[in-house]
Amino acid sequence: MNKVYDLIIIGAGPAGITAGIYASRQKMNTLFVTKDFGGQIGKKAVDIENYPGFKKITGSDLIKKLEEHLESQEALVERDEVVDVEKEGDKFLVKTANKKKFESYTVIVASGADPRPLEVPGEKEFIGRGISYCAVCDGPLFRDKTVAVIGGGNEGFEDAIFMTNYARKIYILEYGSKIKADETNQELVKKLGKTEIITNAKLERIEGDKFVDSIIYKDLKTKKDKELKVDGVFVAIGSQPATAFVKGLVLFNKRDEIIVKYETCQTKTEGLYAVGDCNTGRFKQVVTAAGEGAKAALAAYGYLQEIK
Amino acid sequence: MNKVYDLIIIGAGPAGITAGIYASRQKMNTLFVTKDFGGQIGKKAVDIENYPGFKKITGSDLIKKLEEHLESQEALVERDEVVDVEKEGDKFLVKTANKKKFESYTVIVASGADPRPLEVPGEKEFIGRGISYCAVCDGPLFRDKTVAVIGGGNEGFEDAIFMTNYARKIYILEYGSKIKADETNQELVKKLGKTEIITNAKLERIEGDKFVDSIIYKDLKTKKDKELKVDGVFVAIGSQPATAFVKGLVLFNKRDEIIVKYETCQTKTEGLYAVGDCNTGRFKQVVTAAGEGAKAALAAYGYLQEIK
Repeated sequence: MNKVYDLIIIGAGPAGITAGIYASRQKMNTLFVTKDFGGQIGKKAVDIENYPGFKKITGSDLIKKLEEHLESQEALVERDEVVDVEKEGDKFLVKTANKKKFESYTVIVASGADPRPLEVPGEKEFIGRGISYCAVCDGPLFRDKTVAVIGGGNEGFEDAIFMTNYARKIYILEYGSKIKADETNQELVKKLGKTEIITNAKLERIEGDKFVDSIIYKDLKTKKDKELKVDGVFVAIGSQPATAFVKGLVLFNKRDEIIVKYETCQTKTEGLYAVGDCNTGRFKQVVTAAGEGAKAALAAYGYLQEIK
Repeated sequence: MNKVYDLIIIGAGPAGITAGIYASRQKMNTLFVTKDFGGQIGKKAVDIENYPGFKKITGSDLIKKLEEHLESQEALVERDEVVDVEKEGDKFLVKTANKKKFESYTVIVASGADPRPLEVPGEKEFIGRGISYCAVCDGPLFRDKTVAVIGGGNEGFEDAIFMTNYARKIYILEYGSKIKADETNQELVKKLGKTEIITNAKLERIEGDKFVDSIIYKDLKTKKDKELKVDGVFVAIGSQPATAFVKGLVLFNKRDEIIVKYETCQTKTEGLYAVGDCNTGRFKQVVTAAGEGAKAALAAYGYLQEIK
């Protein structure tokens, strides 16, 4: 069997990297097990304007800075995908896709969550060129534009509420015949104006030249295709946290997010923490993820002192 | 009466500034009421090595970057000290030392906490030159050195536990005849070795040339002065959150920290949030403060949409 690490961090976005920086500074013997560095922001095509200290920075540049910061510390990195985490006594056993096994006394899950994709033609082509998975992040880029929000749940309505600050006109497209968002959100969207709600709308494709120009949806009542001219599309059909590998040790909410105590980000299992987009936290921001990474690393350090 | 702001932020350290960046980006009409910019880290004499994205940066440089980031947004700043906050209906009334009054729908308290000073000769002279108020921040600078921790409560014992990673030898000085730290902490300090506990020790003064060389304390049993050669002094006699002005609207723990729900940092009063060092959060770090600022601003924004 391998050596027993003090801490294994699964995933290396802002939350995981910050946990690594803190853990290393406290001389915790730390191993990252991660497919890649950067998480969601590494793939972001638009600039980040709300990570404090950087007025405007691309996602990839910010990740580069975080990675350099981490490299100045002493954490090890194993490039692999975690497929299972178990606990035996006071040790965690982390198994990977490449059939490796690692042991540790604490684990921080920072595996993020990917927005559920639309899976329609045009989606991949226009990511970062009109298609966004985060209204809070990208909303300000659509000042005085027309946008469509795909998804009539709370997420979609909240996107639309947020976008009334910027957009000239907003469409919400909902596949079902009924809106699922809370009454409060529905009332608010109505009160704020600007937003037109279209139910029974099945998105067919996204069209454009360099940027998004329009979306085509099928009206499920009339079975006819309709076109909407839009400059932007916000995807709000939920997310898919990559957390199945830890299912035996944590509780999930109905969105498969890991339930934690927010002060420390501890899960229901002692020594096991979940930070950033994979937990139930309401606000999925780079700086909130980083803050949680620091909290979990310091909490893991405290726990380690107790058990060792 | 003045106009009614969407948000008033009290204090402008990392937590308050981040809240301001987030609030401005959401077009909240925001006013800072603060004596100064920077909070505790603005005064820090040692480099910060654990704010993700900056490998090593002075406190004042980091604050400058945060301030510039905030200035690129649209928040107003009133340089004044808040002396009272009241709530009337759904509006907050914020009163200042200069007898001004401001109204808002939401308030974020980010007024920080100052470590309680020792108030002995030599303290002010050697701040940043051997005297530290934060072991987690400055501990790594004392690798293989001898340090004294002043204060035999949990804070002091936790500082000593942390310092066993770095220091060669640690003294804990406690004024009383009994140690107040938890049994767990006491056991752990014993187990880790390196630390000598001195009770009945009244610190008299700190001496040195360019840096701290020694401390002089009175043995309260023998009434004799004793000298200890040390390279560093960690002050761990509690902190004084500057939160009295909000006492009618929040609950405090016994350290006068404001009790919040950690997911949003909301206090017991709707629309009123407390972030960073002034709340009960266990880990007082720049990045955790910043993360909380973002959470509270987004929560305040949500609340504002509901009531407006």
